[in-house]
Amino acid sequence: MPQDKQITVYVHPIPAPSHRVLIALADAKAEYILYNLDIWRERPDWFSSKVNPLGKIPAITYGGPKVAPDNPSPESAKLSESLAIIEFIADIFPESGLLPADPVVRARARMINNYFDTRFFPAFWDFFIEARAKPADILGVLETVQGLLPETGFAVGAWSIADVAIAPFLVRVVMLLENGLGKQQEEEGKEVLRALREPRFARVMKYIRDAKEWPSFKVTFNEADIVAQTKAFLLQRDN
Amino acid sequence: MPQDKQITVYVHPIPAPSHRVLIALADAKAEYILYNLDIWRERPDWFSSKVNPLGKIPAITYGGPKVAPDNPSPESAKLSESLAIIEFIADIFPESGLLPADPVVRARARMINNYFDTRFFPAFWDFFIEARAKPADILGVLETVQGLLPETGFAVGAWSIADVAIAPFLVRVVMLLENGLGKQQEEEGKEVLRALREPRFARVMKYIRDAKEWPSFKVTFNEADIVAQTKAFLLQRDN
Ligand SMILES: N[C@@H](CCC(=O)N[C@@H](CS)C(=O)NCC(=O)O)C(=O)O
Ligand SMILES: N[C@@H](CCC(=O)N[C@@H](CS)C(=O)NCC(=O)O)C(=O)O
Repeated sequence: MPQDKQITVYVHPIPAPSHRVLIALADAKAEYILYNLDIWRERPDWFSSKVNPLGKIPAITYGGPKVAPDNPSPESAKLSESLAIIEFIADIFPESGLLPADPVVRARARMINNYFDTRFFPAFWDFFIEARAKPADILGVLETVQGLLPETGFAVGAWSIADVAIAPFLVRVVMLLENGLGKQQEEEGKEVLRALREPRFARVMKYIRDAKEWPSFKVTFNEADIVAQTKAFLLQRDN
Repeated sequence: MPQDKQITVYVHPIPAPSHRVLIALADAKAEYILYNLDIWRERPDWFSSKVNPLGKIPAITYGGPKVAPDNPSPESAKLSESLAIIEFIADIFPESGLLPADPVVRARARMINNYFDTRFFPAFWDFFIEARAKPADILGVLETVQGLLPETGFAVGAWSIADVAIAPFLVRVVMLLENGLGKQQEEEGKEVLRALREPRFARVMKYIRDAKEWPSFKVTFNEADIVAQTKAFLLQRDN
């Protein structure tokens, strides 16, 4: 179906919530206008007043006239919260296949996503950004996530909104650790990476490798570039 | 449509996430088997191994043979995470009207719900249960939530999954404060209640009054009983 309404996307290449939106748009083969917003350095007035009063990325506008991203039209719908945005993309692009057809499978995907945002995200943040979590904390939630995965395939079998939601975080866990990035103690980072390489984490590590090969993930994730940008971002937070 | 599959619900009367599920089931006029689980006093093995490996309430089983709730069948689907469960109920009972028909309105409802669970819930918990948040913190998120509400009506206009998700928390904020319940300093509780009675919070207070009158909310919320149980629960946490 040809796309009849404009989509403008406000994101940043580093954070996983933004990455979710770019993956979903790639799965949907949607056309969109991309606006890279470095929200930590600048939070333009037009963004908070006209796009997202919560002041956060990712956010999108949908419909209304085609306008410059920094001059949003009052006629477009404004949406934020990455999980809500990826559900919206799955909704308006059913050919994306992102929304499982069976209501029970759909519910399982949402269960994983809500678990992820209420438990995994805080643990991820506390370990890598605030350095106030222990290796056992992040390994604990990783083990729980692994326990939610089926024996083979993606989070609920075929690639779905659940993978769009969790893969950006899981891939970043390994990326950060392998590159010695993050605010945690160096030795703690190494401890987590060693644990993840043990057989007991084989399933989630296989999931991470598979997700990185999925087309919509691959085209939205230039690892070398994201490593470099994350390094710069963390240095900036030091000052 | 007559309901062809069994639903068994594991909840507790106090917490808001459990209440969400009971409201959605009431809106759907669903038949279900209720199992009250006091998860803080007992976490039965059968619950963690056969219903919810995350060990949390609310949880439901769906389909399979009708069995005793404490002897769940391997044939039923097992679902947890309150936001996922209420979406599931909205999905399988479309006559409930809980899911807005317009994809943009649906997305707005989900945006509110995800904001709520990632920002409001931690602030609620930190203020009332952990006593590590200041009045300004909880008032800040209440102001943000108020800013998301339309001028009149419910969260996205007509009663929807967004109200099912947010009303149980918002009603409990006022209920806890009016009854001097919670772990916060007494004076801090009074300060929040005084602020909420100022004109600047009129919109959210009106929302709270309206929600309490909505039929599915009303039949699932016996305030005197919940106040008494919450009191007992908080005393128990002291010991
Ligand atoms: N729950 C939100 C989280 C969004 C979020 O935390 N965004 C961060 C970047 S990852 C942000 O905009 N931070 C700027 C700020 O909070 O000031 C979602 O999933 O979209
Ligand atoms: N994000 C979950 C939260 C569920 C939750 O935290 N449940 C609490 C009761 S409100 C629980 O089961 N706590 C027991 C425990 O964590 O041990 C949801 O919305 O369902």
